[in-house]
Amino acid sequence: MQTWIESNEKMTTPTHQIEDLFTPAARAYVAPVWGAAQEQPRPLISLAYGLADPALFPQEEIVAATAAATADDPDAALNYGPPAPRLVEQIIARLQAQDVPARPEQVMVSYGSGQIIGLLPDVFVTPGDTVIVEGPTFMGAIRKFARAGAHIVTIPVDAHGLDVAALEATLLDMHARNVRPRFIYTIPTFHNPSGVTMPLERRRKLIELAYTYGVLLVEDDAYGDLRFDGTPTPSLAALDPDGWVLRLSTYSKILAPGMRVGWAYGPQPVIDRLAMFRSEGPSGPFLTHVVAYFSAEGRLEAHIGELTALYREKCARMMAAIERELPSDVSFVRPAGGFFIWLRLPADISATGLLPVAEEHGVTYLPGTACFVDGQGDDAIRLSFSYQPAAILADGIKRLGAAMRAYRERA
Amino acid sequence: MQTWIESNEKMTTPTHQIEDLFTPAARAYVAPVWGAAQEQPRPLISLAYGLADPALFPQEEIVAATAAATADDPDAALNYGPPAPRLVEQIIARLQAQDVPARPEQVMVSYGSGQIIGLLPDVFVTPGDTVIVEGPTFMGAIRKFARAGAHIVTIPVDAHGLDVAALEATLLDMHARNVRPRFIYTIPTFHNPSGVTMPLERRRKLIELAYTYGVLLVEDDAYGDLRFDGTPTPSLAALDPDGWVLRLSTYSKILAPGMRVGWAYGPQPVIDRLAMFRSEGPSGPFLTHVVAYFSAEGRLEAHIGELTALYREKCARMMAAIERELPSDVSFVRPAGGFFIWLRLPADISATGLLPVAEEHGVTYLPGTACFVDGQGDDAIRLSFSYQPAAILADGIKRLGAAMRAYRERA
Repeated sequence: MQTWIESNEKMTTPTHQIEDLFTPAARAYVAPVWGAAQEQPRPLISLAYGLADPALFPQEEIVAATAAATADDPDAALNYGPPAPRLVEQIIARLQAQDVPARPEQVMVSYGSGQIIGLLPDVFVTPGDTVIVEGPTFMGAIRKFARAGAHIVTIPVDAHGLDVAALEATLLDMHARNVRPRFIYTIPTFHNPSGVTMPLERRRKLIELAYTYGVLLVEDDAYGDLRFDGTPTPSLAALDPDGWVLRLSTYSKILAPGMRVGWAYGPQPVIDRLAMFRSEGPSGPFLTHVVAYFSAEGRLEAHIGELTALYREKCARMMAAIERELPSDVSFVRPAGGFFIWLRLPADISATGLLPVAEEHGVTYLPGTACFVDGQGDDAIRLSFSYQPAAILADGIKRLGAAMRAYRERA
Repeated sequence: MQTWIESNEKMTTPTHQIEDLFTPAARAYVAPVWGAAQEQPRPLISLAYGLADPALFPQEEIVAATAAATADDPDAALNYGPPAPRLVEQIIARLQAQDVPARPEQVMVSYGSGQIIGLLPDVFVTPGDTVIVEGPTFMGAIRKFARAGAHIVTIPVDAHGLDVAALEATLLDMHARNVRPRFIYTIPTFHNPSGVTMPLERRRKLIELAYTYGVLLVEDDAYGDLRFDGTPTPSLAALDPDGWVLRLSTYSKILAPGMRVGWAYGPQPVIDRLAMFRSEGPSGPFLTHVVAYFSAEGRLEAHIGELTALYREKCARMMAAIERELPSDVSFVRPAGGFFIWLRLPADISATGLLPVAEEHGVTYLPGTACFVDGQGDDAIRLSFSYQPAAILADGIKRLGAAMRAYRERA
């Protein structure tokens, strides 16, 4: 393109690059690298990701909810406006049924709980600030904290969830060094990836530590509604008299991930500031009205009942297959809900080393290393029983068993 | 709550505040102040906001699209996954029909174009950086730029859109002072709020200036599809051989604002980085599949035809009422499309001064001052003909005329 400048001799032919205009953070962009193994030699059974089971997507009910929401008040559902007030009321009613005294100004509807996780650094993390996470944990969260320049400290998870004694020692040490962590990201119920649930006593201790050290507890409760047996353990939000808990939840696991509707409940100053940093404004009227109509009149609770029965059965099928097909020195903690089984491998099997052998045998999984920021996890793998049909789950575990035997023979 | 610390005598009773944990930007939060005039003495006819006309919300087609999208491939529409590829294909086809050679990696689907506007500062604005906007312009955009600490420079809009001669003088002056603005935010077609459209010659000049000075042009095309007559003027994106245009568009005006679906087209490095800063990840599978099914098989174009006829008629009704009811020294440029009429007031009428009188008379509008960052605009008001039924529009203008006469009598 020909260009010219009037009366400014200093300017020569422009060699401008659009990249020159970027902020430092935007310049630091690195294109995501996708796994090389795009072409698979045979159809893989993936046990890697926590997708929902499409068998129970309430397709007809979603259509009926869309029809009702758009017919009853088209202007509210389809014009500019706030998220459906009815959805906020439903969220509050569910929280109150769990002994959480929620008020509307303490709830923010979001595009999935992932949106809240993505906004947390805007509110809490100046580069170099410390954030505490569980090891293992949900890597989608860690990636967002790391990108914001957080210094991430990992506290171990055992068969009863976050090790609060280790946490306390760490907080004490940080306090001595004048370091105040911004928040502790925890998944206390049906933990991703380990499947474990934190008992009441630990929860109380965790609340006490948060209060004592002035640290926000971010309670990610993505799976809490999918309880296979027993009675629910009170959520951290229900045990928090002083407003140090931000609870995240989502309709992804109890309705459909593709809807992208979640929510946060917490102290109003935090909710206000999360809302302040949303680039896209409040969640849309249409989506939130559809979810509110779907959820009304007991339909959400009934659907959760069906989902729980389905996932309980699939979890049982996977556990039975593990007992039957995998070497006896592979262990796991039986999950009381959620989507995942966390296999602990014997010392001679590496999760990342086994992966290509497993894929040769037609099955794939998430190596435990993907659930830690610090290189741990090669002694574990995460299996999801949520997505594949039950028969395929059993076949996948059979393939995994064959892969483990082949791996040992090659060693 | 009782607390205690083991073996750390330095720590006394905590007086922690959750606000201590906030980033500097989060601390700077100011609660939004809502207008005091919540209680109105009589039902107000609001001509203030650019809401869509609910009379033409395609309620049945949206339900049918929901049914088709969720039945055809429930896993694609309802599970985790990318936005509907079909929607991206449709956007590209529409761009190509406008001589814009778009590729999929140059398109990002968003939660309304407002999301893109909200993300722009993350990519381009370090506090203190200069951003150029039109005066008047869409205040929703300016607010987001200002909050990010941008230094905002206003270039006037006349009856032919952005004054490119004034822009050139400003760019030259900035260049001499070694200031490189990050982007120019412009609404070249059916401008909000002024209703004017920039002719081809100015567009070419604008592209040339962007290239010469290495400044991104952000072309907000929210209204371009709603053309009442004449042939379309090529979009800036179609005139840009060198990749200095980011075009924003939305389904808000041609389908339903409450759906919250928009998109950006532009240079891939910009699209990549906009995507990088989204806290909520890509737009949801459900929403994007519903919009794609709705839009297929010519339905979107047919619907745009209906909308254009409706808004053309409503604009004509409002213009006729203005000619009939308002003082003859009130002037406006006849809009060739869009949602708005921008009234220029005579010297003795103040837009903000008139507002309470207008509300006493049962009508409200947006004072021009709301469309400038620098205090200009008290000589103009924005009227929207999009939302109210035609009969109400005429009544609203009648009330406005009475208010203007009353205002003059009181003066």
